[in-house]
Amino acid sequence: MSKKIKVGIIGAGTIGSVHADAYAKVANAEVVALCDILPNTLAEKAKRHNIPLKYENYKDLLANPDIEAVSICVPNDLHAPIAIDAFKAGKNVMLEKPMCLNADQARKIVKARDKSGKILQMGMVRRQSNEADIIKKLIEDGRLGEVYQIRVKLIRRRGIPGLGGWFTTKARSGGGGIIDISVHALDLSMYVTGLWNPTAVSAKTYSKFGWPIENYNYVSMWAGPPKMDGIFDVDDYAAGLIRFGDKATLSFEVAWACNAQPENAIEILGDKGGVKLEGSNIVLLTEFDNRPADIKLDYDARRDGFASELEKFIGAINGENEVPATGEQGVIMMRVLDAIYKSSDLNKEVEI
Amino acid sequence: MSKKIKVGIIGAGTIGSVHADAYAKVANAEVVALCDILPNTLAEKAKRHNIPLKYENYKDLLANPDIEAVSICVPNDLHAPIAIDAFKAGKNVMLEKPMCLNADQARKIVKARDKSGKILQMGMVRRQSNEADIIKKLIEDGRLGEVYQIRVKLIRRRGIPGLGGWFTTKARSGGGGIIDISVHALDLSMYVTGLWNPTAVSAKTYSKFGWPIENYNYVSMWAGPPKMDGIFDVDDYAAGLIRFGDKATLSFEVAWACNAQPENAIEILGDKGGVKLEGSNIVLLTEFDNRPADIKLDYDARRDGFASELEKFIGAINGENEVPATGEQGVIMMRVLDAIYKSSDLNKEVEI
Amino acid sequence: MSKKIKVGIIGAGTIGSVHADAYAKVANAEVVALCDILPNTLAEKAKRHNIPLKYENYKDLLANPDIEAVSICVPNDLHAPIAIDAFKAGKNVMLEKPMCLNADQARKIVKARDKSGKILQMGMVRRQSNEADIIKKLIEDGRLGEVYQIRVKLIRRRGIPGLGGWFTTKARSGGGGIIDISVHALDLSMYVTGLWNPTAVSAKTYSKFGWPIENYNYVSMWAGPPKMDGIFDVDDYAAGLIRFGDKATLSFEVAWACNAQPENAIEILGDKGGVKLEGSNIVLLTEFDNRPADIKLDYDARRDGFASELEKFIGAINGENEVPATGEQGVIMMRVLDAIYKSSDLNKEVEI
Amino acid sequence: MSKKIKVGIIGAGTIGSVHADAYAKVANAEVVALCDILPNTLAEKAKRHNIPLKYENYKDLLANPDIEAVSICVPNDLHAPIAIDAFKAGKNVMLEKPMCLNADQARKIVKARDKSGKILQMGMVRRQSNEADIIKKLIEDGRLGEVYQIRVKLIRRRGIPGLGGWFTTKARSGGGGIIDISVHALDLSMYVTGLWNPTAVSAKTYSKFGWPIENYNYVSMWAGPPKMDGIFDVDDYAAGLIRFGDKATLSFEVAWACNAQPENAIEILGDKGGVKLEGSNIVLLTEFDNRPADIKLDYDARRDGFASELEKFIGAINGENEVPATGEQGVIMMRVLDAIYKSSDLNKEVEI
Repeated sequence: MSKKIKVGIIGAGTIGSVHADAYAKVANAEVVALCDILPNTLAEKAKRHNIPLKYENYKDLLANPDIEAVSICVPNDLHAPIAIDAFKAGKNVMLEKPMCLNADQARKIVKARDKSGKILQMGMVRRQSNEADIIKKLIEDGRLGEVYQIRVKLIRRRGIPGLGGWFTTKARSGGGGIIDISVHALDLSMYVTGLWNPTAVSAKTYSKFGWPIENYNYVSMWAGPPKMDGIFDVDDYAAGLIRFGDKATLSFEVAWACNAQPENAIEILGDKGGVKLEGSNIVLLTEFDNRPADIKLDYDARRDGFASELEKFIGAINGENEVPATGEQGVIMMRVLDAIYKSSDLNKEVEI
Repeated sequence: MSKKIKVGIIGAGTIGSVHADAYAKVANAEVVALCDILPNTLAEKAKRHNIPLKYENYKDLLANPDIEAVSICVPNDLHAPIAIDAFKAGKNVMLEKPMCLNADQARKIVKARDKSGKILQMGMVRRQSNEADIIKKLIEDGRLGEVYQIRVKLIRRRGIPGLGGWFTTKARSGGGGIIDISVHALDLSMYVTGLWNPTAVSAKTYSKFGWPIENYNYVSMWAGPPKMDGIFDVDDYAAGLIRFGDKATLSFEVAWACNAQPENAIEILGDKGGVKLEGSNIVLLTEFDNRPADIKLDYDARRDGFASELEKFIGAINGENEVPATGEQGVIMMRVLDAIYKSSDLNKEVEI
Repeated sequence: MSKKIKVGIIGAGTIGSVHADAYAKVANAEVVALCDILPNTLAEKAKRHNIPLKYENYKDLLANPDIEAVSICVPNDLHAPIAIDAFKAGKNVMLEKPMCLNADQARKIVKARDKSGKILQMGMVRRQSNEADIIKKLIEDGRLGEVYQIRVKLIRRRGIPGLGGWFTTKARSGGGGIIDISVHALDLSMYVTGLWNPTAVSAKTYSKFGWPIENYNYVSMWAGPPKMDGIFDVDDYAAGLIRFGDKATLSFEVAWACNAQPENAIEILGDKGGVKLEGSNIVLLTEFDNRPADIKLDYDARRDGFASELEKFIGAINGENEVPATGEQGVIMMRVLDAIYKSSDLNKEVEI
Repeated sequence: MSKKIKVGIIGAGTIGSVHADAYAKVANAEVVALCDILPNTLAEKAKRHNIPLKYENYKDLLANPDIEAVSICVPNDLHAPIAIDAFKAGKNVMLEKPMCLNADQARKIVKARDKSGKILQMGMVRRQSNEADIIKKLIEDGRLGEVYQIRVKLIRRRGIPGLGGWFTTKARSGGGGIIDISVHALDLSMYVTGLWNPTAVSAKTYSKFGWPIENYNYVSMWAGPPKMDGIFDVDDYAAGLIRFGDKATLSFEVAWACNAQPENAIEILGDKGGVKLEGSNIVLLTEFDNRPADIKLDYDARRDGFASELEKFIGAINGENEVPATGEQGVIMMRVLDAIYKSSDLNKEVEI
C-alpha cells in the first residue's frame, strides 16, 4: 500500500514554487519543509504555499528525520553538494536540471545514491509532456523507421536569464545557454529515440551579448533585472554536431541571445518518417493518399509536467514505478555538456 | 574598346540552354557553336537558340580557332578534362558548378589556366543576385559587426534530381546533395562574409531514399524521370560544422530528400546584427526605435543572374572587369566538399 | 489621498480567480468578499485566495455596506441583472466581457450607472497590454497615416469552450464565438484607431461543429469537459464586413471551431503604414533604408493586464484616473454584436 | 479524326507570348498569324515565335479565312469589341481574363457566340492546374462535406502593374486589383465548389497608393516602369463578403498594394474537412489517427496550365471535349465584379 511521503523543498525561488504547486496535486506527497538562505523569500514562500517548517540552512532540513524526500531547486553549483549530503542523510532526491556542473560531480552524485540505496530522479520535466508520449509512441510504432538525424534548434533573440547573477557566472552555473536550455532538448531527443550512446562532439560556443552588461538591449528578462555589477562569462550561442556511433547524428544550435529569429524545435528524421516538435506543434512527416505529406497533429499541450514527474518520484519511493529519468542518464547528459565545452575550448572534435 | 567575343557552349542540356538564353542578353557575346554528344538534342537546341555551328565532339569545337570562349555545361566528371583541354586550346572558360569532382582536379584546372594565361570563371550564379549585393553591402557597411556564425539549411522533402542517372552516380557526379546544392550556399556565404579560410569540418552524410530506385515516392523530378536500372550511390542528407579558424563557424544541413519540412535559408550572425536569406526573403536582424527588430526588406528578386555573370565573363576577357568568381575560390570550395565527404567516411572531424 | 477600497467578487469560477489574483497586486484594493452559488467552489476559492466573507447569494454581498466595489465574473446572462442591482446598492462595478446579452441590456446598465453616480468599467483587458500601448502610440504618432482597413482573424480549429454548458446555450451566453472572442479584438481595434462609429454590418454566422455533442472531436476544452446532455445552439463560425461610415471597413473571421488553420491576428492598414498584431508579435509595415519593409518589434509581452485594469478601476473610484473602458463603448460594442447576429439572420447587411 | 487548327493571336504583349509558347505544345494547333498595333513589338515577337503572318489591324487578321481560331490577348477594354468581331467573322475565340469591362459587355459576347455557333473559352488558366484537380477531387470525394465558407486573400505589398498605363486607367481596364487578380481566385473557388449562385455582395474598395504616381515606392513592377504622366483611378485594395444564397459565403481581401504582409491563399471550409491552397501548398484539414490534423500534400506544382487550356480549346473546336470555362460562367464572374464595385460606390450591400 502506498504511503504519504513527507517532502522538503530546498530553494524557494521560482522553481521551488513550481515544485510546491505541483506537489499539491500529488496525493501521496506532503510538503512539510522549505529551505532558503534568504529569510524574506523563505517567509513569503512558506506562507504562500502553506508550508509549516522553515529552514535557512539546508543541513538542518536534512537533519529532520521525518522528511523522506527532498526537491533540490537551487543554483547549479549547489546541486552536487546538497544532493550528496541528502543521500548521506538518507533522503530520496528529486534533482532539478541541469544535474550539476560537470560529469565528475554527476558520477559522485550517483555514487552517493548507490551508497544510500535511495531514489534519485532527474528533473527532466519535458519527458512528462503529452508531446513526449506522442513522439515516443510514433517511434516505437515504427512510423519513423530507423532514426539517423536529430536537429535541435533553441534560438532566443535576447533571452539571457538573470544577467550578472548566478545564471551568467560560470563558477556558479557551469555555463550559459548550453547547460541551461539545451539540456531539456538533448534529453528529450535521447529519451524518445533511445539514442543513449553519444560518442563524439564537434562544437563551438560564443559569448557576444552579455558583456558589458549595461549595453545589453532586451525587452524582458527571466530572473531579471540585470545586476549591473555582476559577471557574464558564459556562452550565449553554440552550434555543433554530436555523433552517436556511426549510425546517427544530432546537430544543435542553441542561443540565449543572438541576431537570428527565435526558434524552438526538435526534429527527428528516420528513413520511413520524421517528426518535428516546434513549440507545441507536432508535425508527422509521412505519406497520405500515397503522397509525401506533412501532418500537423492536434493534441492537448496543457498537461502539467511537474505534477506528473513528482507523482512518479513519490511513486518510485513507494516502489510503485520506475524512476522516469535516472542518474545514469544524467551522467551521460553531463558528459555531453562537458564535451561541448571542451570541443569549443580546443576548437576541435572530442570524444565523449 | 571592347570587342565581340565568339562563344561555344559545350553541353546542350538544361543548363546549356540557360547559358544560350543568357548570352543572348550580353551585347559583346555571340554564341557561334554548340556541342552535345546526343545528335537529337544538339539539333533541337541549335535550332531553338539559332546557333550556326554544331559539334558532337567537344574537341572539334575547341579546334575551331574563331571561338575564343566556352561555357562548359556537362556532367561533373567531364568538367576537369574539358576545361583543361579548353585551356590547352587557348580558350577562355566559363565553368559551371560544381567546379569538378574533387580538389585535386580543381588544382589541375587552375594550373592549366595559369599555363594558358586565359580567363577562368566559376558558375557561382547566386553571387550575381540582387540579394547577394544587398547582403554584401549590409556586411561591408558594418550592420552585422563581426560575423561569427553562419547557418545553411537546404532541405528538400523529395528532391533527388535525375535518379539513376549521372546525378546520382558518384563516379560521374562526385556526390549527391552536398556537391550539387550546398555549393551555391557555401559559396555565397563565404563570398558575402569574406570568410575564405575554412580550417576543419565535422560532418556526416547519409543515403536513405534513392535506393532501391523503384521505391522512391516523389511528386516531381528535375532531370527526371528516374532510370530504373541506374545507380544511386550518393548522399541524400548531410549535416556538419565547418570551422573558420577560431573565430567563426558554419553549420549546415543539406538534403536532396528526407522526412523534414523544406527549408532554403542562409543566416549570417554578427555581434551587431544578423541577416537571414530565406528563399527570396531578406530579413535584417537589428534594432528599430531602440528595440531589437527583424526587418524584412523588399527588393527586386527577379534579376537574371546568368546574364549578369556571362556579361562579366565577357568583360573579363575584354579586360574590363575582374572575374567575379575565381578558380582559387573554386579550389577552396572543392577542398571543403572533399573534407565533408572525408569526415563522414572517417566518422570524425578532419582538417581542410 | 487615495484610500483602500473593499471589493467583493461575484462569481468564483476561473475568471473570478483571475480577478482575485490580480487584486492582490493592487495596493488600494482589498478583496473582502466572494460569492458563488456553488458552495464547494465558494469554499475552495475563498480558502485559496484567503477571502474572509463568503456569500451564496449575490444580493447578500451587495447588502454589505462595507463593500464599495464589485467585480462581476458570472455567465453572460447574469451580467445585466447583477450589474443593475449593484448600482442600485451603490457599488462601483467592474464588469467582465461581454458586457451582457444585447444592446438593450447594455443601455439599461449604463442608465443604472448614471442614476447611481458610481463607476462602471468594462473588462476590456487587452487594452491594458503592452501591445495595445505600442500600437496606439504608432497610430497617434502618425506612422500609419489614415487608417482605412482593419482585418480581424480569430480562428480556432476545435476550441468550443464548455460545450453543452452556458457558453454554448444562447439564452445564457447571447451567442458563440462572436460574443465570446471577437469582443476583445473588435474592442482593441476600435480603441487603438479611435474608430467608434460603426455604421453597418454584413455578416453570416454558422453552427457546424458543436452538435450533436458526442460527435465533437477535440483535444482539449476550456471550461470542459462537455456536458453530453447540454445544449449547443450558437455560432461556431462567422465572417463579415463592418463599415465605419464611408472611410473605413473592418473585415472579420471568427471561429470557435472550423476546418482551417488557427489564426489570431489583428491588422490595421493605413495609407502611410500598417501594423499586424499576430499572437504576441507586432509587425510594423513601413519603410526602412528607403525600401518597403516589415519590421517585427521586440517588446515585453508579459504584462499582467488584469492587475493593470483593476489598478485603474480602483484609481477611478478614488478619482485618480479616468475609466479606461467605458459603458458607452460597451454599448457600441453590443450594438455591433447585435447587428452581426441580425445580419446573419436576415442574410443581408444591416445598419448599426 | 481531329484536325489541325490554324490560330491567330491578337495582342503580342507578354500574355500573347505566353499563348504562342503554349500553342507550340498543342499538337493540333498551328499559330499562323500575330497581330499588334505596335509594329516593333509585332516584328520582334513574330520572329521570336516563328509566326509567318503579321497584322497591325485585328480586322485584317479576322478577314483571313484560313484562320479558324483566335486568342485575344489585348487590354481589357478591347476584349468585347474584338471578341464580338471575331464571332462575326466566324472564328472560335479563346478570350483572356478578365472577360471584359462589365456584365453588359459579357452578355453581348455570349450573344455573339450564340449567333455564330462557334466556341468561346475563357482564360481561366488556374482551373488547369494540378492543384485545381486535386482540390476538386477532394470536394467531389466528400472529404470536405458541405462547403459553407470560402476565404480568398490576395495581398500584395507593392504590386500595382503598369502604373500609369492601361492597367490603372479605369476606362481601359475596368478596375484595379479586383478585376485583375481576384478574378482567378473567385473563378477557381466557384469552379471547385460548384457554387455558381452568388446572390449578394457587400464590399468596399480603396485607392491609396498609385497616386501621385511619382510617390509610389516599389521594388519591381510587372508591365513597368511607371508612366509618370499616366492615370491611376482604380482600386488598390478591396474587402468584402459574397453571399451564395443562405448556405455559403465567400470573404475576400484583395490588394495590388497595401501595408500588409503578402498573402496568396484560398481556403474552403466544409463541415467535414477543409482545404487551404496557399501559394502552391495544399493543406487538407481533416483527421488522422483520430485527431484533428492539418495535412500538407506534396504534388507536382509545375504543370503548364496554358498548354493545357489551349489543348482543350483546340479539342473543343474539334468536338473532342467540352469547353472547360464557359462564357456563361464568365458572365456570372462579371456580374460579381460589377456588384463589388457597385457595393463600394453605394457603400452598402447589393444584390448580384
